Amino acid sequence: MTFLEKLAHAQQTNRSFLCVGLDIVVANTPLPLQLEDEPMLPFARAIIEATQDLVCAYKPNLGFYLAEGAAGMVALERIVRLIPPHIPIILDGKFGDIGNTAEAYARGAFEQFRADAVTLAPYMGSDSVAPFLRYADRGVFVLARTSNPNAGEFQNLKTVSSQEERLLYEAVALAASRWHAQGPAACGLVVGATAPAELQRIRHIAPDLPFLIPGVGAQGGDLEAAIRYGQTRDGLGPVINVSRAVLYASRTMTFAEDARRAAQALVDTMRSIGPIR
Amino acid sequence: MTFLEKLAHAQQTNRSFLCVGLDIVVANTPLPLQLEDEPMLPFARAIIEATQDLVCAYKPNLGFYLAEGAAGMVALERIVRLIPPHIPIILDGKFGDIGNTAEAYARGAFEQFRADAVTLAPYMGSDSVAPFLRYADRGVFVLARTSNPNAGEFQNLKTVSSQEERLLYEAVALAASRWHAQGPAACGLVVGATAPAELQRIRHIAPDLPFLIPGVGAQGGDLEAAIRYGQTRDGLGPVINVSRAVLYASRTMTFAEDARRAAQALVDTMRSIGPIR
Repeated sequence: MTFLEKLAHAQQTNRSFLCVGLDIVVANTPLPLQLEDEPMLPFARAIIEATQDLVCAYKPNLGFYLAEGAAGMVALERIVRLIPPHIPIILDGKFGDIGNTAEAYARGAFEQFRADAVTLAPYMGSDSVAPFLRYADRGVFVLARTSNPNAGEFQNLKTVSSQEERLLYEAVALAASRWHAQGPAACGLVVGATAPAELQRIRHIAPDLPFLIPGVGAQGGDLEAAIRYGQTRDGLGPVINVSRAVLYASRTMTFAEDARRAAQALVDTMRSIGPIR
Repeated sequence: MTFLEKLAHAQQTNRSFLCVGLDIVVANTPLPLQLEDEPMLPFARAIIEATQDLVCAYKPNLGFYLAEGAAGMVALERIVRLIPPHIPIILDGKFGDIGNTAEAYARGAFEQFRADAVTLAPYMGSDSVAPFLRYADRGVFVLARTSNPNAGEFQNLKTVSSQEERLLYEAVALAASRWHAQGPAACGLVVGATAPAELQRIRHIAPDLPFLIPGVGAQGGDLEAAIRYGQTRDGLGPVINVSRAVLYASRTMTFAEDARRAAQALVDTMRSIGPIR
């Protein structure tokens, strides 16, 4: 089964576009958990058990595991093994490096950390993306227009190439459309819900590309735009990521129930906005 | 001591601009080593012992450790502890993420993996760089013009902003100059030796920024240009990275001596091109 088939299946089974970002900050977990030797693992286990019938994917961000040193990476390796096999794992590492290093990242992400898809930074160009695209049953999401306050600083620069004017994120979206067409892996885009005009624009440029949409939740993005412009021409739904608003819905020992309640509310809102196949 | 002071001191002590990239691929190490449980560690120890009086820095690239899963990250945590305290460690992760995640990466790189400096990808803008710049005694190197074959695909796009035309890598170099001026951490640039014209241009734009220069060695870059344009106005030398041409100078059990010989030849060539203070 390819990444996109697995994603579509999870979206349909759980009637959900919600991706829970497993961005675990030990200091934000309930105090009793912090007394354990490896608090990331029991926290993640409880969150996954409480939300696995409400999500279409889980997205651990590498940064939060690296923050805990090698111990955090051991936790990550164990956490990805707790995710049910029918739910896709997106490893958010925003990788981007020269060819032989990109190969090493792809091997790590896809083979060691069992990711179905990864996020990639486009700045270094096609040969930094190519090694990931060789994995036929996997996917990549290339940063186009991100959700952070200064995202536009470079991404919205006007570029001129052979008489054609386009913004940098548009040039990236066009390149990603070529990468997706070439395959064999699926190539999608990261487009923040905090930039609804750009979201609409990118959907226009790249009608067939799957979107990973961060920025809903703590970052205050536009969920309606995420659903409206998030779907591909073929009807594949977006992957709408929420991390903090679910993980830290409360910081008491009922955190897992509270996370479920927050996830359920998000999914209910998504279902009320647009039909999920 | 700040990162730049530590770097300058190592350059002067060892009369060297050479940085050895600790990009360990287990399959490229001598066969007898591969029989060990954790071959990365003895390989790295031998390379560090053989080259520590010839280098101004060591640069482990995260991708090669991630390729080995959590075990690789445990090896990395142990390898950085083998590097003598007077030699700067540059953790090459090409990080770039939203604010709270960038904070997590900075904590991981600077506090857990003991990096004196890191590499950063600029695509996400100022707020993805800011958390790293808060570490007053550390440094960052922002990707400007990288050494890979498709580097120019986005980096050499012509951009237009308030009537000013500049290439994308020039816009990044200008932003990095502001970040360096604001501090408190030092902000330098990654500029590949495979693009000598761009190297000259970026030195013109950013006369005060330290350069990390990959692309010499296996990638065939221009060492003379790296030394000529690599120095800052104040006379701080470049960090010229070579990985494969040193690490895998041979694949026999004399690999460490052979690596030393390769490193010595590179340093001799550097000294013959320009005086090292």
